[in-house]
Amino acid sequence: MISKLISEIKKKGAPIVVGLDPQLGFVPQQILDKYYSEMGYTLEAVSEAIYEYNVGLMDAVADLIPAVKPQIAMYEQFGIPGLVAYKKTVDYAHKKGLVVIGDIKRGDIGSTSTAYAIGHIGTVKIGDQEIDPIDEDIVTVNPYLGTDGVKPFVDVCNQNDKGIFVLVKTSNPSSGEFQDQILSEDGRPLYEKVAEKVVEWGNESMDDGTGKNGSADGAGYSNVGAVVGATYPEMGIALRKLMPKNYILVPGYGAQGGSGKDLKGFFNEDGLGAIINSSRGIIAAYKNEKYAEFGAEGYADAARKATEDMIEDIRVNVF
Amino acid sequence: MISKLISEIKKKGAPIVVGLDPQLGFVPQQILDKYYSEMGYTLEAVSEAIYEYNVGLMDAVADLIPAVKPQIAMYEQFGIPGLVAYKKTVDYAHKKGLVVIGDIKRGDIGSTSTAYAIGHIGTVKIGDQEIDPIDEDIVTVNPYLGTDGVKPFVDVCNQNDKGIFVLVKTSNPSSGEFQDQILSEDGRPLYEKVAEKVVEWGNESMDDGTGKNGSADGAGYSNVGAVVGATYPEMGIALRKLMPKNYILVPGYGAQGGSGKDLKGFFNEDGLGAIINSSRGIIAAYKNEKYAEFGAEGYADAARKATEDMIEDIRVNVF
Repeated sequence: MISKLISEIKKKGAPIVVGLDPQLGFVPQQILDKYYSEMGYTLEAVSEAIYEYNVGLMDAVADLIPAVKPQIAMYEQFGIPGLVAYKKTVDYAHKKGLVVIGDIKRGDIGSTSTAYAIGHIGTVKIGDQEIDPIDEDIVTVNPYLGTDGVKPFVDVCNQNDKGIFVLVKTSNPSSGEFQDQILSEDGRPLYEKVAEKVVEWGNESMDDGTGKNGSADGAGYSNVGAVVGATYPEMGIALRKLMPKNYILVPGYGAQGGSGKDLKGFFNEDGLGAIINSSRGIIAAYKNEKYAEFGAEGYADAARKATEDMIEDIRVNVF
Repeated sequence: MISKLISEIKKKGAPIVVGLDPQLGFVPQQILDKYYSEMGYTLEAVSEAIYEYNVGLMDAVADLIPAVKPQIAMYEQFGIPGLVAYKKTVDYAHKKGLVVIGDIKRGDIGSTSTAYAIGHIGTVKIGDQEIDPIDEDIVTVNPYLGTDGVKPFVDVCNQNDKGIFVLVKTSNPSSGEFQDQILSEDGRPLYEKVAEKVVEWGNESMDDGTGKNGSADGAGYSNVGAVVGATYPEMGIALRKLMPKNYILVPGYGAQGGSGKDLKGFFNEDGLGAIINSSRGIIAAYKNEKYAEFGAEGYADAARKATEDMIEDIRVNVF
């Protein structure tokens, strides 16, 4: 899968991913009103509105970007109907040729992690049928339970040519409470210990460079990557060196405070190795003063303009 | 919510919870075949089969136990239809008067954690409607992202009289990789640092002992509890003392190797403070040699007998 992601990044010239995190306050009122008037104030109406919003966004930006990252919490918030919108969004993204990074942050033990992996990036066998239940390409994984919790995802990556990004150093203010704790064994912070394990897990799922999965662009990289927040650029530099073969998914650009000049250290010298996420900065651009001229009706055009601006910011500051 | 859970534990005389983790291999063949012949080898057929299986189990054991703990991964494995079975299971458990502990191990940052909390234990406002999307009573939460990730759940607990169990020391073999790391700051393991935070978060959601939520049985306990595996009884003793007001959900009894005699240290002197989970030992009891006489047709009766045996094991060894 890392080959496919890197191919798309090169083709679009944009190491960025748009986070489809449809908070209710981001969905333009005219879309909500349309479904409220048809279906009442229901979870089902919200589900339809979110999906229409996402389709508009993807139609507007699909030619500019390699991937989208729907944050499943924002769908789960609306129960089963919300999750239906998530699944439809994944399917539509595939139709538009986008790599889908499911931001699910799952993690459990043994057979339970296997179940998550199968549901999201694997295949379930029912009688004589093989079915891909949710069918993302890559998912985010929480490492707190250790190798037992992560290894089942790696196995499914190998079976189905998929990928994972493991949380190493998250972008939020209190991420340091546990992640930055200095460990007695070697005086390093916990997040570096996790990074070391990412390398170990990643070695079991290297792209083989044969191009059998459509391209050889992933040669030298692993299907197992890491999440490191843009809000911690110094740590990004250190972690980039610790995990040279692992892609880094970088959240926290834009609304959370990270900017283009913070990002250089997340990339390798080959210009690869990182993909930067922006969510509300793009999908709710029409609410930002800078793009206010587009208005709610022009939310998709505003998203396109914000995406172009982000690509330019990264081009100027990183490359 | 802790008042309600403790009331039910006292009423049933059983500090146990049955894990509803419907792996396909556990669902009796006659139930699967019924839906396969009606609906083909589809996710929808599996969803119906899982739900019927769960209803049979709950009908058989509801009078013996205070709570059930559906493991959402086992449903998510079957995509949206699987999650429909999860939601129907939650609703049926409530009809049977059972407390529902959703084993979801979610955790993210800020508004994203809020979205998970709202989806599972909170209320979403849509126009003039207030809707409980999935409606568990208690959920499990992953602490790796720190206070930012957990606090939104605590806030929702306070708004809706709900509860959470935060992962502290999990039952799996490799849980020590990160959780047991000794921290430089005070020479204690990471899981104790997490436990300390559980106490802090828990202090913000203490049962007030007024009985306004139906009973005063929770007086002195918090709506914020912890997960500590039965497979680590020594750590259980230490963590019990570190978190005197926080309930401990104890997985790993039975199939994972924990037994009744390992459990005493998880309880407080008042006989409260812990609730022990068993999943496959109960729901797949009919596959165990000990209960083989029941056969697949008698899976629910086998589950009832296994539940009675578990209650007796805990009564003899703990109290």
